[in-house]
Amino acid sequence: MLRKTRLFTPGPTPLLPAAQFAMAAADIHHRTPEFRALYQRVLEQLKAFVGTQNDVLLMACSGTGAMEASVSNLTSPGDRVLVLSAGKFGERWVALTKAYGCNPDVIKVPYGSTFSLDEVRAALKPDTRAIFMQATETSTAVRNDVEGVAKLIKETGSEALLVVDGITGLGTTHFDIDAWGVDVIIGGSQKAVMIPPGLAYLSVSERAWAAMEHSKNPRYYFDLRRERKSAKAGESAYTPSVALIAGLGAALDYIASQAGGDLAAGRENLVNNAETIAAMMRAAVQALGLKLFAPDSPAAAVTAVLPPEGVDSGVVVKELKGRFAAVITNGQGEMKGQIFRIAHLGFFDYMDTIALIGALEHVAMHTLKLPGFTYGKALTAAQQVFADRVLTAGK
Amino acid sequence: MLRKTRLFTPGPTPLLPAAQFAMAAADIHHRTPEFRALYQRVLEQLKAFVGTQNDVLLMACSGTGAMEASVSNLTSPGDRVLVLSAGKFGERWVALTKAYGCNPDVIKVPYGSTFSLDEVRAALKPDTRAIFMQATETSTAVRNDVEGVAKLIKETGSEALLVVDGITGLGTTHFDIDAWGVDVIIGGSQKAVMIPPGLAYLSVSERAWAAMEHSKNPRYYFDLRRERKSAKAGESAYTPSVALIAGLGAALDYIASQAGGDLAAGRENLVNNAETIAAMMRAAVQALGLKLFAPDSPAAAVTAVLPPEGVDSGVVVKELKGRFAAVITNGQGEMKGQIFRIAHLGFFDYMDTIALIGALEHVAMHTLKLPGFTYGKALTAAQQVFADRVLTAGK
Repeated sequence: MLRKTRLFTPGPTPLLPAAQFAMAAADIHHRTPEFRALYQRVLEQLKAFVGTQNDVLLMACSGTGAMEASVSNLTSPGDRVLVLSAGKFGERWVALTKAYGCNPDVIKVPYGSTFSLDEVRAALKPDTRAIFMQATETSTAVRNDVEGVAKLIKETGSEALLVVDGITGLGTTHFDIDAWGVDVIIGGSQKAVMIPPGLAYLSVSERAWAAMEHSKNPRYYFDLRRERKSAKAGESAYTPSVALIAGLGAALDYIASQAGGDLAAGRENLVNNAETIAAMMRAAVQALGLKLFAPDSPAAAVTAVLPPEGVDSGVVVKELKGRFAAVITNGQGEMKGQIFRIAHLGFFDYMDTIALIGALEHVAMHTLKLPGFTYGKALTAAQQVFADRVLTAGK
Repeated sequence: MLRKTRLFTPGPTPLLPAAQFAMAAADIHHRTPEFRALYQRVLEQLKAFVGTQNDVLLMACSGTGAMEASVSNLTSPGDRVLVLSAGKFGERWVALTKAYGCNPDVIKVPYGSTFSLDEVRAALKPDTRAIFMQATETSTAVRNDVEGVAKLIKETGSEALLVVDGITGLGTTHFDIDAWGVDVIIGGSQKAVMIPPGLAYLSVSERAWAAMEHSKNPRYYFDLRRERKSAKAGESAYTPSVALIAGLGAALDYIASQAGGDLAAGRENLVNNAETIAAMMRAAVQALGLKLFAPDSPAAAVTAVLPPEGVDSGVVVKELKGRFAAVITNGQGEMKGQIFRIAHLGFFDYMDTIALIGALEHVAMHTLKLPGFTYGKALTAAQQVFADRVLTAGK
């Protein structure tokens, strides 16, 4: 049988053809009116996509680069900060804040869980300078409560800045950045916006810009003030990733085109799309008789599944790739072998989803030999979810 | 929900990305050593793909152009020929042979059926100059018996040439061109070889080359003798379709790569792939409670399905496109509204197939409201076919 390679990974995600074509055609110099027009357009589009009136900046780096920029620009050595850690990416905030000399208080919850707001309230101190968190913890497929933390900051009168890694959260989670008071939210190109890795973007509130003036950390490439100044002139401070920016513009055009040209509505469509696909996938894996790793607060961006007792999750990853060229991911770090993860963020549709569930059924029957499982159970469960959420609802 | 446009049409078929990239890069002049090297390589690859030692020629035209070339080069006005017509493309042979002044005897079977060899035996006359037939009749999804007709010609000692439209048959049907004695077989680029329309290819036997010397029909662009002479020098007689030829080379490379670099084995894989997908689809539509249009001699290239009593088949076509961006085809000509057709030739895999069956289930439930149908029936039937043919067989 032929096998088409298909990514079901939480970044990189499947590429949008229109973005690929725009990237291939992006043969322009970056200090020209042509580029400035493109750059300003894409920055405006990103504001609508993020859903904020704050500045949004683009940088040629991975999401981690933008995470570092938010630490180096907003903190000083010796600052007390609070990290809400629910997995590998929460641990990255701990490492980053320590690398810049901060003293992080850390709420670390078991993998597969999220923290409670009571824990956050108890850990938030009068001198906490910033809270760093993930919107969705990609390593465990958990959704964290950004709105709840934002409200808590307001309620308690805390002056802490709220910095959110939305790298897999943007485009999979409903946010109201400005109303909630999120000071920084960070996204990456290889996620819901359907283009390859290499670009990060982040929104920065006025409160954050003000705080930046007091930071004593060294920074140059990631100096957000310099980047903001350049952006106002329609340029990037350093050489931009031109092709990716052209691709991002095309992808945002596509997202808007799915909602009559309205990018904010297109973003909501994209979130609903991920939610429906995630609901199909959760129903399917449970019908297989498998357990969700994060049943209580599952992200729409990615679903993490426990393999059957005594089976290495790598077997599922390997079989899906070997037999169907469907690429999913294993657990990260010490979670390797313990969960497998299937992504729903970005350019996925019904057809992709039901096909992967069909392939999973074969792995369940042929490789895992799951007791009591018969063909069609997982597919039927997913079909019913799609029918209820989309066809009956008339979406 | 997002919807990715996917073709399930019997030409054009889904494009192979590697071929698209080769086409985009094909910025070469056609009277150069670079092009000659490419052209000679692709012609050799085509011989292996067709499975013949005969010359294979490429032409910048659609499949119909190569059909015309086989008529204009092999017949003269007043010649008696035999056309085996099982649908719209059989009727095209009738029109073409008449356009060149032949007197065609026509075996015309009802749509959805194929002819019997007894009918062919009775219609084959001592002065029949050529038999024109389809390997698979795309308009009705019927497979015709090329091997049987070829044997009949040999058995009866007939001198008739056998000209086969293999446009959707090549890559979906097992052929042994030289052993059977097929004089001409015609293929098209937008079919099993996974590239856009615009190229036709055909193999020509020594018997056919000899017959060509006696043809009194006018021909210039489609003069196969001139094209053969140019091909021996590594060129095309007239300006070739350079990008498509580069794409075809990449597609044939891909087909070979699926069988350790052996193009003949790759072709057999491709045929088996189409057969498995067709078997999945037939099982699925029957599980839906629908009837096959050509149950007795179904092609692997395409499956034709009768809609429920009183329903226009266009409803299924429209719903699949509107709700899932899955493009299938209606019946052609007077068959419009009476059948819908789903293709399996070329770059289709398990994932494409099971996804389309999932979408068909929604059309069955939500739009057609088929009595007694419940979610999962069609999917389960297809899953079982795949398991039996591929997983259990260890393919």
